[in-house]
Amino acid sequence: MTRAPTGHRGQDTGAAGPQPGCDWSGRSVPAKLLGVLAAFGPDRPALTVTDLSRRSRLPLTTAHRLVGELTRWGALERGADGRYRIGLRMVEIAALCPRGVGLRDVALPYLEDLYEATHQNIQLAVRDGLEAVFVERIAGRHAIAVHSRVGARWPLHATGVGLALLAHAPQDVQEEVLAAPLAGFTSRTVVDQKALRRMLAEVRRTGLAVSDGQVTLDAYSVAAPVRGARDDVVAAGSIVVPADDPQRLAWGPAVRAAARGISRSLGAPYAARRL
Amino acid sequence: MTRAPTGHRGQDTGAAGPQPGCDWSGRSVPAKLLGVLAAFGPDRPALTVTDLSRRSRLPLTTAHRLVGELTRWGALERGADGRYRIGLRMVEIAALCPRGVGLRDVALPYLEDLYEATHQNIQLAVRDGLEAVFVERIAGRHAIAVHSRVGARWPLHATGVGLALLAHAPQDVQEEVLAAPLAGFTSRTVVDQKALRRMLAEVRRTGLAVSDGQVTLDAYSVAAPVRGARDDVVAAGSIVVPADDPQRLAWGPAVRAAARGISRSLGAPYAARRL
Repeated sequence: MTRAPTGHRGQDTGAAGPQPGCDWSGRSVPAKLLGVLAAFGPDRPALTVTDLSRRSRLPLTTAHRLVGELTRWGALERGADGRYRIGLRMVEIAALCPRGVGLRDVALPYLEDLYEATHQNIQLAVRDGLEAVFVERIAGRHAIAVHSRVGARWPLHATGVGLALLAHAPQDVQEEVLAAPLAGFTSRTVVDQKALRRMLAEVRRTGLAVSDGQVTLDAYSVAAPVRGARDDVVAAGSIVVPADDPQRLAWGPAVRAAARGISRSLGAPYAARRL
Repeated sequence: MTRAPTGHRGQDTGAAGPQPGCDWSGRSVPAKLLGVLAAFGPDRPALTVTDLSRRSRLPLTTAHRLVGELTRWGALERGADGRYRIGLRMVEIAALCPRGVGLRDVALPYLEDLYEATHQNIQLAVRDGLEAVFVERIAGRHAIAVHSRVGARWPLHATGVGLALLAHAPQDVQEEVLAAPLAGFTSRTVVDQKALRRMLAEVRRTGLAVSDGQVTLDAYSVAAPVRGARDDVVAAGSIVVPADDPQRLAWGPAVRAAARGISRSLGAPYAARRL
């Protein structure tokens, strides 16, 4: 349960040179500004200007000025404790991401139906480069704990949604993942290139991706690809249940049906209603 | 059903001077960068560099450079059609907003319970200045259509959540809303200052805010305040049902109970469990 995911990509983006604290005149102003935003993370949602200066490797005066601009705009909010947090303006802008809230809005009714039918964890993820990013999660209060916070990133080869996305990714993406060392999260994570290749072929053949103890030993997930207007795979939906769930083989068809419903709503030809 | 909400705040933020197309040397680089992001809106989620240049009033070369920086960082994504869209990186950052996804994560199980119990539209909103911003919405597929897209803004005096937030806002916020002309969305919107003042007192007295045809004539909503760690009102949850729903008076207690559960999860003393 405790292996780390790949983490928030922002963690090391602010750092761009040998010495902390110095003014990177080599970095453009936009890069510095984005570096301030990247200083925030799930484990540090509230930061002082000093924290921000240190984490984004900017002089305090520069950090002050940029934090001021971001706060005026609403990208940051200053709390009563003097710390800064990500502001509502970012939520508003992020809601315009077609692969984020846009996709989520189309998908949510289907995910909710799946949740109501199963009362298990329901997830929706998209691929970003070599990672899966969760864009929605419905977690039952009594369902198994999972590491799928919205915005969290995971490598493609371990999770159900990741395997579904990887199996349908462009060939060069697949080869890039297969060529790199594959991180093992549990004794069951598939880290062998040939075994992973076989698994991906199986995902394409069956239309379902199964992660059985490959992320945490106690979790079993089954995922299905979601297709867009050109029948291209644009997302993957999954259900996560305890690994010892005696009904676990029964969840596949429900996930597949939900994924098909979302695909139809996205205009995927394969899922179009026929008379 | 068709009156416009206050709209995406970004709509006119990019514009900061008399002439479109000229280079605002008066605007700082961060302001220009944020102006590019603000050019996107619900009605224009995909824009070309030319669109972005025009909307953010930047010369094409400057727009090109800033769009390049934002795209490298992941704040924008370029589609196969050459248009730019808000990128997943923004979803990732927005997920760190404590008043957005953070609040939503705490609230979602309660909102889901409310949804399952009622199969009606469930909403969660926070106050930002003089507006309510929706941070979550669970919409039944067969429920009445509502204007509560995540990230959407509404004035405080018309919606159920807005009235709940306004009734508990600092006195100066209430006076500012009461002093300004109140927009009428339907014949039932309360636009009279004295009537609104009475309504807010009633909300504080009963703990519930009702919007009966005040946003659209066909919708009835009942909202309850959500309190944070200092028992301060940090959000409001609501249910929206058809105005002619014969059971509509029955929804109040369920909304109040859900709001109390969320408050307890946020550490509100008033909602703490007692032996």
